[in-house]
Amino acid sequence: MPDVQEAHMLGRLLAPEIEAMLEAKQTHEARAALVDLLNPEIADVLVELPPHQRAVAFRLLPRERAAEVFTYIPMEAQEELLKELNTEQLAHLFDEMAPDDRAELFDEMPGEVAAKLLALMKPEERKQTQAILGYPAHSVGRIMTPDYLSIRPEWTVTQALEHLRRHGRDAETFSRIYVVDERGRLLDDIRIRQLLLVEPSSPVRSLMNEQFITLHAQDDREAAVKTMERYDLPALPVVDREGILVGIVTFDDVADVAKAETTEDIQKMGAVQALEEPYINASIMELVKKRGTWLSMLFLGEMLTASAMAHYEHEIAQAVVLSLFIPLIISSGGNSGSQASTLIIRAMAVGEIELRDWWRVLSRELICGAALGLLLGVIGLIRINLWYALGWGHLYGEHYELIAFTIAASLIGVVLWGSIMGSMLPFLLRAAKLDPAVISAPLVATLVDVTGLIIYFSTAAVILRGTLL
Amino acid sequence: MPDVQEAHMLGRLLAPEIEAMLEAKQTHEARAALVDLLNPEIADVLVELPPHQRAVAFRLLPRERAAEVFTYIPMEAQEELLKELNTEQLAHLFDEMAPDDRAELFDEMPGEVAAKLLALMKPEERKQTQAILGYPAHSVGRIMTPDYLSIRPEWTVTQALEHLRRHGRDAETFSRIYVVDERGRLLDDIRIRQLLLVEPSSPVRSLMNEQFITLHAQDDREAAVKTMERYDLPALPVVDREGILVGIVTFDDVADVAKAETTEDIQKMGAVQALEEPYINASIMELVKKRGTWLSMLFLGEMLTASAMAHYEHEIAQAVVLSLFIPLIISSGGNSGSQASTLIIRAMAVGEIELRDWWRVLSRELICGAALGLLLGVIGLIRINLWYALGWGHLYGEHYELIAFTIAASLIGVVLWGSIMGSMLPFLLRAAKLDPAVISAPLVATLVDVTGLIIYFSTAAVILRGTLL
Repeated sequence: MPDVQEAHMLGRLLAPEIEAMLEAKQTHEARAALVDLLNPEIADVLVELPPHQRAVAFRLLPRERAAEVFTYIPMEAQEELLKELNTEQLAHLFDEMAPDDRAELFDEMPGEVAAKLLALMKPEERKQTQAILGYPAHSVGRIMTPDYLSIRPEWTVTQALEHLRRHGRDAETFSRIYVVDERGRLLDDIRIRQLLLVEPSSPVRSLMNEQFITLHAQDDREAAVKTMERYDLPALPVVDREGILVGIVTFDDVADVAKAETTEDIQKMGAVQALEEPYINASIMELVKKRGTWLSMLFLGEMLTASAMAHYEHEIAQAVVLSLFIPLIISSGGNSGSQASTLIIRAMAVGEIELRDWWRVLSRELICGAALGLLLGVIGLIRINLWYALGWGHLYGEHYELIAFTIAASLIGVVLWGSIMGSMLPFLLRAAKLDPAVISAPLVATLVDVTGLIIYFSTAAVILRGTLL
Repeated sequence: MPDVQEAHMLGRLLAPEIEAMLEAKQTHEARAALVDLLNPEIADVLVELPPHQRAVAFRLLPRERAAEVFTYIPMEAQEELLKELNTEQLAHLFDEMAPDDRAELFDEMPGEVAAKLLALMKPEERKQTQAILGYPAHSVGRIMTPDYLSIRPEWTVTQALEHLRRHGRDAETFSRIYVVDERGRLLDDIRIRQLLLVEPSSPVRSLMNEQFITLHAQDDREAAVKTMERYDLPALPVVDREGILVGIVTFDDVADVAKAETTEDIQKMGAVQALEEPYINASIMELVKKRGTWLSMLFLGEMLTASAMAHYEHEIAQAVVLSLFIPLIISSGGNSGSQASTLIIRAMAVGEIELRDWWRVLSRELICGAALGLLLGVIGLIRINLWYALGWGHLYGEHYELIAFTIAASLIGVVLWGSIMGSMLPFLLRAAKLDPAVISAPLVATLVDVTGLIIYFSTAAVILRGTLL
């Protein structure tokens, strides 16, 4: 059986063959070759075909499979394909798509195109899509599907199974069946195995324990990720304010959300405002905007270093040797700060650390920062003494021992300070109900740079007084 | 219904009540209060109880639920609890746990404890655990469970359903049923709905299409994440080298793996070697080691800046004003490099970018980097001229216009260079079959710092020749 790489490979390998068949008008052969593949593999073949043939090949697929294959095609190619299809073909395609996939597609489509396509749907399908679209962006309502199975408590297991047989064809999952009352209010969830394992004449009610977990349609979609992770359920029911079951959220859609949220976090941690689309699809304009905003703010913040340095201009003029180590000292503070903030932000995101742990974290970082500072200080001492011993020490002048000591002491202070800032800033943001992920490595580095300079020059002033300064 | 925060809250709120009941020896009441909760909620209550009461409360739970609740307890508390239970209680607990949960527990336990516990299991349970433990760390074999349902092609649907009724009680999932031959070789996977929707007398063979996806037990567990994401299946079958079905991997275990892998990536991107346990549980020693390794390497790399600066000592002595802008210039290069590397590494991790896209990325980054450099250059020009206009320009001397121009030109060069390095280094690592995630923001910054200094002082040499230099 193909693994993932092989599957992608398969698409690339088969595309030229299918292309040749289509060129030669061997549509039967092309169709037979395509339907033998799995849906994601067919999507790969389509993507590799030239655009005009893509639509031809797509039309060869059986109706229901076409809709499934379509969801595996990347957004860009989806839109191209839509333009190639005629009205009737479009209507078929949309009728067969799962409502949540359809909602996602609409969400990313230019407004007029979406309106035109909405008009093509069967009335009941259109209603579903519009209902889903009515929920706020990034809400649970947007990722739910109404294709769930519900039964009534007063039915027997036989009746329930008969209902599943009749209405189960389009359901997204069979692993959870929902019990609702006559108004549609959710009463319980039942596992399919429970129905299979009991006496067929028992009432559904006898299987109920009234222990179930729900999401609200207006909840942020992150709630779906957290809840699913916590309760290990393959699908979660979604209710409205009155407790009426309006849809379900399935594990695959939740996995997509988790991935998108993590990408946003990572981008923020890299000092980029979250992109709305994949990097490779984002316009240059968007990239410049999303990066330029943070880059300019960091630049303005970093200007304080020029002001701080101006303050020590006299010292630098007297002992130019001090300026040689400026990048080394401040970058060490920035690096230790980046490490600390990365660890803490991720631990917060996965729920390992909460606000109340701040003191425990601070006490760990105090020890850790001091130890790491000491480590770098010792390496610095060795290096300067080694250079001197090797005869390259003329750079540092006769007071090289004092300079080495200044640098070692500054490193301890700067690295300790970086660790404290890097670990505590995410807590400050969390306490202010802001997103800790905006504490990016570059932001910590910028904040630590100014204080790093002050620590360095103050240390130098103390140690070098009467000799170099 | 409780949402996630509320559920955690629930544990904290109920713990004192349960504690009071246990103090008063009201074990019946405590038991009744506990069993009314969902398993993850019971785990929360247990964690909040003092250690000696935790074991008491745990023993009150019905046997099968105890094992389930146990899997929701954090590792640290799990070990404490194990120490409190007697041999028989331990044996019960382990017999009831799902094999994959048990394997995970063993994996993180000190060797002697694990050996002692293994000895307590029923022979057939022990065999399962050992089989799982025989696969390499981070392999699919480690996260699979042997609790799947398999049927034979020659059976009728009635026979198959009867088999599920008899053997389905412990199965991890009912959503996929596996068809195997007499040797146990996997022939197909079938959805439970297929069994429910057809004539009961049809043979299982009539439902088969022989299209199925498998994992190999020796595969890296990341293959499970990628495959599940691609095919949207709630469970994947795992086969050995001969195609014999040996277990299944379920969506919830895959979600845990995806999370752990992302945490590792994020830690690497923050210049920390991947921690083996949550930050808050890691020993100070481990933290210092995992951070100190990268911090020292970056420090050694950054020492090149001191050498580079020594090269320009003469220029600095002549024009001390140049040194004021060193942190500003080099940090801008580091920041733009961090942004680029973050975007590219994440896009690679989620499969949006492949090796062959390097040229497309480079051409985008050339435009983007130049635009961002220009942006910062203009801000720099404005700032220096503004300071001068405000009468604070004495710092920069009479040649402030030339200095402003030097800085703006350097910024364009440095930011462009940072964007190129940040975006291309991940490709280089990928091409060398290494993990792009080790290109951390601090590493890019360090690499860009030295070249940033060279760009700055070379630009200065050209522009300021004959005036300041």
